[in-house]
Amino acid sequence: MKFELTILGCGSAVPTLQRNAAAQVLHVQERHFLVDCGEGTQQQLRRFKIPYNKINHIFISHLHGDHFFGLIGLLSSLSLQNRRAGLHVYADKRLQEIIEFQLRTMGCRLVYPVHFHHLGREVQLLYEDKVLTVHAFPLKHRPEAPACGFLFAERPRERHILREMTDAYAVPVAFMHRLKRGEDFVTPEGEVIANERLTKAPPLPRSYAYMTDTLFCPAHAEYVKGVHLLYHEATYGDEFARLARETFHSTAGEAARVAQLAGAGRLLLGHFSSRYPDPAPLLEQASLLFPNTSLCEDGAVFTLP
Amino acid sequence: MKFELTILGCGSAVPTLQRNAAAQVLHVQERHFLVDCGEGTQQQLRRFKIPYNKINHIFISHLHGDHFFGLIGLLSSLSLQNRRAGLHVYADKRLQEIIEFQLRTMGCRLVYPVHFHHLGREVQLLYEDKVLTVHAFPLKHRPEAPACGFLFAERPRERHILREMTDAYAVPVAFMHRLKRGEDFVTPEGEVIANERLTKAPPLPRSYAYMTDTLFCPAHAEYVKGVHLLYHEATYGDEFARLARETFHSTAGEAARVAQLAGAGRLLLGHFSSRYPDPAPLLEQASLLFPNTSLCEDGAVFTLP
Repeated sequence: MKFELTILGCGSAVPTLQRNAAAQVLHVQERHFLVDCGEGTQQQLRRFKIPYNKINHIFISHLHGDHFFGLIGLLSSLSLQNRRAGLHVYADKRLQEIIEFQLRTMGCRLVYPVHFHHLGREVQLLYEDKVLTVHAFPLKHRPEAPACGFLFAERPRERHILREMTDAYAVPVAFMHRLKRGEDFVTPEGEVIANERLTKAPPLPRSYAYMTDTLFCPAHAEYVKGVHLLYHEATYGDEFARLARETFHSTAGEAARVAQLAGAGRLLLGHFSSRYPDPAPLLEQASLLFPNTSLCEDGAVFTLP
Repeated sequence: MKFELTILGCGSAVPTLQRNAAAQVLHVQERHFLVDCGEGTQQQLRRFKIPYNKINHIFISHLHGDHFFGLIGLLSSLSLQNRRAGLHVYADKRLQEIIEFQLRTMGCRLVYPVHFHHLGREVQLLYEDKVLTVHAFPLKHRPEAPACGFLFAERPRERHILREMTDAYAVPVAFMHRLKRGEDFVTPEGEVIANERLTKAPPLPRSYAYMTDTLFCPAHAEYVKGVHLLYHEATYGDEFARLARETFHSTAGEAARVAQLAGAGRLLLGHFSSRYPDPAPLLEQASLLFPNTSLCEDGAVFTLP
């Protein structure tokens, strides 16, 4: 039951040789969700061996180039490879205009359908299936490029049947789905068998949140309460707190504060300014407040057990 | 007097890990000309240490994504780095629409001027200065994306003064510019001193031509007669001649035939289909007809002495 995040790019506005523009893939069981798609994402997908024809859902946080300039190239390559399956893109509605204008003007038609879903400024359920849900929530970024965070949360799973015990108590097959939901079993003789004796608890549902680009705002923690893995931008170190405010970004310490307020399990820092060839100082700053913090780098893989 | 070509990408429609999308830089003395700008070009410019803030002229062969999807990212990064100098882009006029629509829709303004120059279907002088000229000429590609080739040609230089000889004959300073153009000198006594005794011939002007994407067409050789260095697409090997025709591309043998017809000095093959992880067979095929052929690879540098 895989729940694995691969960082394709953790740079900021201007990419560097160490760090590509923003993009990552969350792999939840057989699903591959692409989150942001900066220039060069299709090459990073190849480099890190992500089966990118299996990506069916792409989430774009906001309309700054380092988060979406790679989308047109990826869409085109998928078309050249004769993709047939529809592709869902969740983004600012202007992204649809940009992509469609570009394709139309080039005289190019994709050979598969792209379904655009527009992000609003409220909490919004973007996607759900039997395994997980994806919500968007509003962040605070530049006025021309309102940004959204994304929360990927597994649904609670049903309890596991202990087959030897249900055999021993001759639980009928028809009752199994009620056992899985936690009901006790009453034998024909009227004996109550506690559910805990017949089943065991399922693994806890796992969750991942993506928060970039944004000003520090304590209220954002409410959107990701108890999240297991939190990616939060840390464009700057705390020494540039003022620059961070002016540019609508966060510092490492602010990212840690959000993780702390949310009661997150683990914090990942990314979206580093090119002024940090080595972002180690950002790790130090964040760890003071939130010890379970890691730095992202391109190609890094983070797994939730 | 540098005349040096750096290959940034020599892949075709779908880039591979070995080969980026089309882009290259021609460095002629202090000028850096960018030719095509596929996705990832700004990263390749960094990787191969091209001073990309010095690029003032960008030539885009045609409107397929693998030749221009990197332009918007490069333009944006130059703006974020506070470029001031104007930038000239020579391309299909629809590229201006695409770039301007995208910037306007994103609510983004570049902090420096971009001057678009539209390519036509005739031979066209795009650029000239005291050192060289750049011409566009029409190739044969898909109807929705008419392609142009580009010819970079140094102007003939003036002859070099042999200072000891002009001193010996007391040639007046005012006459020097006529000497440089090849005139003989007549002494006050009426003696004619042949120009060859007072000057030496300058180096021959060098030239470079870029031809991609195109169907094989013998007449194209006329545009690049006597060119020193010719880059010609060889998307396929000769075994796929029919596929090449259907997709408006050339084979390795056809590239060699153009080089031969043009009397080129040296042929460079590129724009390889992703079906050739190793394009060595294309080199073999072309070399049969035109021995002085080389394969491009990303990062390769070719210098004209």
